Amino acid sequence: MNKNEILLLLTDRWCDWEASYAIAVTNSFSEYNVKTIGIDTTDQVSMGGIKAAVDFSISDYDNFDSLSMLIIPGGLSWEENDYDEIAQFIKKVRSLDIPVAAICGATYFLCKHRFLNNIKHTGDSLELFQSVKGYEGEKLYIPAQVVFDKGFITANETAAVEFAYEIFKILKVDSDEEMSQWFDNFQNGAVH
Amino acid sequence: MNKNEILLLLTDRWCDWEASYAIAVTNSFSEYNVKTIGIDTTDQVSMGGIKAAVDFSISDYDNFDSLSMLIIPGGLSWEENDYDEIAQFIKKVRSLDIPVAAICGATYFLCKHRFLNNIKHTGDSLELFQSVKGYEGEKLYIPAQVVFDKGFITANETAAVEFAYEIFKILKVDSDEEMSQWFDNFQNGAVH
Repeated sequence: MNKNEILLLLTDRWCDWEASYAIAVTNSFSEYNVKTIGIDTTDQVSMGGIKAAVDFSISDYDNFDSLSMLIIPGGLSWEENDYDEIAQFIKKVRSLDIPVAAICGATYFLCKHRFLNNIKHTGDSLELFQSVKGYEGEKLYIPAQVVFDKGFITANETAAVEFAYEIFKILKVDSDEEMSQWFDNFQNGAVH
Repeated sequence: MNKNEILLLLTDRWCDWEASYAIAVTNSFSEYNVKTIGIDTTDQVSMGGIKAAVDFSISDYDNFDSLSMLIIPGGLSWEENDYDEIAQFIKKVRSLDIPVAAICGATYFLCKHRFLNNIKHTGDSLELFQSVKGYEGEKLYIPAQVVFDKGFITANETAAVEFAYEIFKILKVDSDEEMSQWFDNFQNGAVH
């Protein structure tokens, strides 16, 4: 496989659970490799206190030929920061037709930068999006656990398993049957 | 609060999702602080490729007066290692009547070190436990998402949300009603 790199974008107080299934399964049980990226290569501490190393800064990253997806977890710093550099990076990634997967606070970030005005999308709340200046995507908002449209995956904070499953299907990490079994198992619990 | 420290034990290829809800909520939304601990203070890379710093080595840790719980996620190194030092550390923690929460591969580790012979417990499979020399807990094994008995929480790999909820209740991180609402939301999804 040529395009075997997945980037996980880490920001201050990134949310531990939101991309956790997606990165663990792809990095350990498929041909994909997960690398971390940030505005710079300063360690980024998660909500849970995990001090994580950052492999690449977005200004230096140039491995787009190998990039298969950019995953952006939520966290506690999206409301207080504009992160214009990250918005520019997402534009670059999408211009190369590489999918971007955002969950929770990261969907709010996409909203602030007007990525959601022209795609079907979800997120933690329509009310939050409607409070953002320039948001015009009301008719495209879908109350759902996860939505995939035109290269963007969006999900709410309770949808870590659904978010992972959508990512697995797009990246074709396994057979349809294996991925479906994984989803059933983690969605319903092994004992239910 | 005096006993406000939670330790997360990290080993090689620790599982990203299993303790993720538990640590994020306790560290960011309660009076508890999560610190990481390992056999030594070498960074430990998760299944998902997160290179995490380790705050304490088990041989040097002496903050037991503040310790409220030890959480041990699963991962991909429990089968190939005995980790006798970790077993000794767990004995020390339990001798002080501090709870130990283990999930997935960490329950297998508890089994190997005969912690499960005398408590009600669960884990990913009874068959796996029965393959362990010295396991005598067959009658105490419960097919369940999570079990709490005599200071040990045990859970299977699909039970990250139930595992967190059990931890929240034991640590009393919030009111019963708030914790119950959190569980309903994350167990069933915000949109269902």
